[in-house]
Amino acid sequence: MSKNLLLISTSTTHGTGYLEHAEEEVKSLMEGKKSILFIPYARPGGISHSDYTAKAREAFAQWGVSVTGVHEYENAVQAVQEAESVFIGGGNTFVLLRNLYANKLVEPLRERINKGMPYMGTSAGTNVAGRTIGTTNDMPIVHVKTFDALQLVPFNINPHFLDPDPSSTHMGETRDTRIAEFHHHNRQPVIGLREGSMLRINGDTVRLLGPHSARVFLQSKKPMEFKPSDDINFLLDAY
Amino acid sequence: MSKNLLLISTSTTHGTGYLEHAEEEVKSLMEGKKSILFIPYARPGGISHSDYTAKAREAFAQWGVSVTGVHEYENAVQAVQEAESVFIGGGNTFVLLRNLYANKLVEPLRERINKGMPYMGTSAGTNVAGRTIGTTNDMPIVHVKTFDALQLVPFNINPHFLDPDPSSTHMGETRDTRIAEFHHHNRQPVIGLREGSMLRINGDTVRLLGPHSARVFLQSKKPMEFKPSDDINFLLDAY
Repeated sequence: MSKNLLLISTSTTHGTGYLEHAEEEVKSLMEGKKSILFIPYARPGGISHSDYTAKAREAFAQWGVSVTGVHEYENAVQAVQEAESVFIGGGNTFVLLRNLYANKLVEPLRERINKGMPYMGTSAGTNVAGRTIGTTNDMPIVHVKTFDALQLVPFNINPHFLDPDPSSTHMGETRDTRIAEFHHHNRQPVIGLREGSMLRINGDTVRLLGPHSARVFLQSKKPMEFKPSDDINFLLDAY
Repeated sequence: MSKNLLLISTSTTHGTGYLEHAEEEVKSLMEGKKSILFIPYARPGGISHSDYTAKAREAFAQWGVSVTGVHEYENAVQAVQEAESVFIGGGNTFVLLRNLYANKLVEPLRERINKGMPYMGTSAGTNVAGRTIGTTNDMPIVHVKTFDALQLVPFNINPHFLDPDPSSTHMGETRDTRIAEFHHHNRQPVIGLREGSMLRINGDTVRLLGPHSARVFLQSKKPMEFKPSDDINFLLDAY
């Protein structure tokens, strides 16, 4: 079986409920599946694993999918090995990746997902699907022994991608500048996913979904904009 | 001799030149000194060490202070040991800290500065003066073996501190939320320094300078605002 991924920039867009804007795509990803394993490690705002799982459970209940939290299992690796599908929610990317390694889930997740188990991520959960977490927007609130992520796709992702505000007087770096700095030290492509955007990977194809274009950064090139109808399959050939 | 530090939020405020808004405080820090060692490791926008040093050299020339770049020396440790004063400029905090460790400068810097050598930092250079770089805004574009920083002060700093924009529809975390998440995993105080703000540390006292108040975050407390005239010496007693 081939890869089946849904990588969502943000779980909640302005004015819509949790996962609401992605409903059709989530249903399409989950076709024929009745359960999903939720990994709540990123703990947005420091929320507990149980409370975060309850939030995901409520959203999936309306679609007839049952949710269990990985922390509810005695053996997290086995939970991944036996899951029908997996969802990693947003929060802090460093806390998330540190816990994926601490619980020895990186390899088992990679193996199952590369064999076709449906995977969805939002925000930090989308970030860790890339080569490294080197393009996260989050603060490094805990240390991680490596920034290498699940590497389900051969490029990096910047979720919550934000265009510069021309009226701003703030001197902090723009997202474009930060990603250009990234490319002084790393060569993989980066895709900036605006809020409301998603990537749908099906085998050898990747499609941009949602209302916005996405910004693609290649090392030593000017940033490029791609619309949802454009062919962006070259991203899967990145080395 | 006692500590003598100037920690600047941003090198350049909107509408002023490089270091211009901090001129009086830089002169006060440098009183009686004729030279400063510049550490250009943070490479803003990927600029070279030489070009970055030239920029610092130009600014200090008008104040009669000569600048050498640490990369110009064969022995960087010796350069620190013999410097009259040190300035670490802004850019990417991860690249900066990685290079401080790679060049074995963390201990020599700490030792000299704790004995009274004047130190100034801007942005990333201010960040690394704190306990850890866990409250940087920068992207983790290179890995660092530890987030422990120079620890010249016993708290963390968030430079370029930014208040939430009430008109924003962006769902990414606010600075307050990010720092609250930091305090789920770390207990040291964090001070958010708005652009134009500076901290001046002289022995056992710390003063907030510049036109703005600063936002102080203590673990499990509501954030507090302090004006430049307020007593914030409790920050130096943090453990």
